[in-house]
Amino acid sequence: MSAPITPTRAAEPDADPRTLRVEGERLLHRLHELGAVGGTGDGGCCRLALTEADRYGRDLVSTWMRDLGLEVTVDAIGNVVATRPGRRPGPPVMTGSHIDTVRTGGLYDGNLGVLAGLEVIETLIEHDVETDYGIAVAFFTDEEGSRFAPDMLGSLVYVGGMSVEEARDVVAIDGARLGDELEAIGYAGPTPCPGVVPAAFVELHVEQGPVLEQEGHTIGAVTEVQGIAWYEVTVTGQSNHAGTTPIAHRHDPLYAASRIAVHVRELCSKYGSHQVGTVGKIDVHPNLVNVVPARATFTVDLRNTDAGALRLAEVDLWRFCDHVAAAERVHIDVRRLARFDPVPFHPHVVEWVEATATDLGHSVRQLPSGAGHDAQMFARVCPAGMIFVPSAGGVSHNPAEHTEPADLTAGADTLLQTLLGIAGVVSIGGVPVGPGWDPVLDHPRAPEEQ
Amino acid sequence: MSAPITPTRAAEPDADPRTLRVEGERLLHRLHELGAVGGTGDGGCCRLALTEADRYGRDLVSTWMRDLGLEVTVDAIGNVVATRPGRRPGPPVMTGSHIDTVRTGGLYDGNLGVLAGLEVIETLIEHDVETDYGIAVAFFTDEEGSRFAPDMLGSLVYVGGMSVEEARDVVAIDGARLGDELEAIGYAGPTPCPGVVPAAFVELHVEQGPVLEQEGHTIGAVTEVQGIAWYEVTVTGQSNHAGTTPIAHRHDPLYAASRIAVHVRELCSKYGSHQVGTVGKIDVHPNLVNVVPARATFTVDLRNTDAGALRLAEVDLWRFCDHVAAAERVHIDVRRLARFDPVPFHPHVVEWVEATATDLGHSVRQLPSGAGHDAQMFARVCPAGMIFVPSAGGVSHNPAEHTEPADLTAGADTLLQTLLGIAGVVSIGGVPVGPGWDPVLDHPRAPEEQ
Repeated sequence: MSAPITPTRAAEPDADPRTLRVEGERLLHRLHELGAVGGTGDGGCCRLALTEADRYGRDLVSTWMRDLGLEVTVDAIGNVVATRPGRRPGPPVMTGSHIDTVRTGGLYDGNLGVLAGLEVIETLIEHDVETDYGIAVAFFTDEEGSRFAPDMLGSLVYVGGMSVEEARDVVAIDGARLGDELEAIGYAGPTPCPGVVPAAFVELHVEQGPVLEQEGHTIGAVTEVQGIAWYEVTVTGQSNHAGTTPIAHRHDPLYAASRIAVHVRELCSKYGSHQVGTVGKIDVHPNLVNVVPARATFTVDLRNTDAGALRLAEVDLWRFCDHVAAAERVHIDVRRLARFDPVPFHPHVVEWVEATATDLGHSVRQLPSGAGHDAQMFARVCPAGMIFVPSAGGVSHNPAEHTEPADLTAGADTLLQTLLGIAGVVSIGGVPVGPGWDPVLDHPRAPEEQ
Repeated sequence: MSAPITPTRAAEPDADPRTLRVEGERLLHRLHELGAVGGTGDGGCCRLALTEADRYGRDLVSTWMRDLGLEVTVDAIGNVVATRPGRRPGPPVMTGSHIDTVRTGGLYDGNLGVLAGLEVIETLIEHDVETDYGIAVAFFTDEEGSRFAPDMLGSLVYVGGMSVEEARDVVAIDGARLGDELEAIGYAGPTPCPGVVPAAFVELHVEQGPVLEQEGHTIGAVTEVQGIAWYEVTVTGQSNHAGTTPIAHRHDPLYAASRIAVHVRELCSKYGSHQVGTVGKIDVHPNLVNVVPARATFTVDLRNTDAGALRLAEVDLWRFCDHVAAAERVHIDVRRLARFDPVPFHPHVVEWVEATATDLGHSVRQLPSGAGHDAQMFARVCPAGMIFVPSAGGVSHNPAEHTEPADLTAGADTLLQTLLGIAGVVSIGGVPVGPGWDPVLDHPRAPEEQ
């Protein structure tokens, strides 16, 4: 499978792109510099989308992009794209991810994909590598969705899945309007959305799960992303005195919410081994020890790689909510916050990542992604794929999130070689490369089959 | 049973205390004036203990007390007592309640007992009634316990159940120290605690439950108060990504909390018809839709009129927490916030309330209290009892809390006649009362039997 990147050895003066490597120390240094922005003092950071902390992170990364002489654009929803042109005009091959974090974020989630992309480009600049397709690195607005739903909002708008107007009207959990916050931090840019469709999209990301570490692999070639359904469930009962109201007279929304939360766990054994379900957020009013609450609002996050099973789990949730509403005589409102079907990545990109990592000497396996990623949005419009590196203990969305420096470098090198293969290499330091370095995109096995 | 207040008819000029009635309109007006302090715009009010709103409420009621020429004292924990002396020196018969509210409080809970006590005293002043024992009306600090645990803190300190020092060090749910807040609102008074033990204590209160209304009674003669146990349960798990963490690898504190909340409801059918249990408050960290939480902290409120059954329910709760901690591999810390055994009221006071209401022509029944009240603290040190009036729909701790004006007046008249019987009446407008108006306290059936 590694044939397309194995150039036929030509005469001595031919340059060999396979020898190119990123500078791991520089990548690590930038990860720590960016991680200090919105640092939480416990090794993690908090840069919720479009907050002041996010602005400082954006300013820092944009400065790094401009310092490399790249053309930097900011679009109407705040996505930032830095492009290094190739020989041919037209859309570049794109990499990137996000730099917003959850409230208890780590240093690597999203940030690795952006800064490794920057590192790839800096490596190409240092070695004076001319590529056939240009190479772009981007960071997308509000990937986490922790402040504004849905998640992956910026890349969704980039590929035309949501209008700019609709996105700007999204209201944050803190009540702020997205458009206002975007302007407040100076990232409502002039570049229109949907954006230019890239020739291909490849994203490097930490796994955020335990599989690679447990099985001793350095690189994951991501085959697909789980389907995701997010719900907000609001249970309205009757606030009353916790001592004087007989149980039979109660309409207790927090008891109803607890029953549903327990049921969400039961769904996970009912709909296959790939079904996961989480109640991560609950807010109760008035939230007092001696008062039967008036209202409980909580979220349900359901994910499955199987589209049919995910849909069954959703219907099961709705029906159980109806059942509890009747049994407890409360009103239950189930509102869908976001929904994405499972997304398969382009099989040639998946194979290409696997072959590249193998050529670099890394242990690699194919695996699905449990988390949503910006790359899945690009899978709607162009050949797309992802590269995973291990997460220590499978821990993510946590200040303790960690990936070994050697794995970070391995991931960035795999990204470099994968992008070079897809974009094609013309010359290094003015010396033409040998045959076999045509872009994979032009190759018979390439994504035009999609 | 009404014999003790039926005076033997004497010569014409004898005054008859049985003809005295409160002025219902004046009571209602004061209830609405006080209810406007911290008004929430939905018919309710919010005067959490020792907040600015509580200070304004205290100032208003204290002004009313002083305007009646009463001697007003403020003790070291902020309890305010207004006394109208009687003929004999020494401790008065006391009535009163509280004017702090829960966050979603109504107009009557607590406030009725204080303002009806004031109305009783104003009626005695207007009619120039000389009583044998003095009569005092008090409001006690932090009865609700919504801001500072335990509830009934002020009356607990008054009767010596907690030291002033310990009480002043209690930390609020908002992080403030009780002693600091007491000083900030100017209610750390010079009168020492424990306070003077009254000759007896009778409190008028809304039922806060549905029994009187459903059975068509106007007055409840309260026999006892449920025992109460409050717990704060903190579940510590591991924060992680909601998509990538397989269910088997999770340590989900919110799932564990939900299981325990469901179990609390099961306890209520297990430990007798008088067992109630409520989870009213839960706080989750980091509380995000796509993150398995790190921590969930919630409260459990257990109540029972049977001391043994309450204890069994508590042990059951602890054991279930241990079970869930092991099953979910989370850490569970169970901390007791407050605990009071069931409190029986003095049987003679209960009978006296019942006889008085009957003589006034009201339908009355004996019933237990589902809520804790300041009167239960006084039951530790003197003959004590309570008078209930109906709560519409059983609703309380809610802006919709309502008691019909006729029932409020009936309750205040019952309080007036009960207090007069206990305190004894010497003269009205200078005209001596006939025989039979000796204080119940000096009567053979009276509380010295306790």
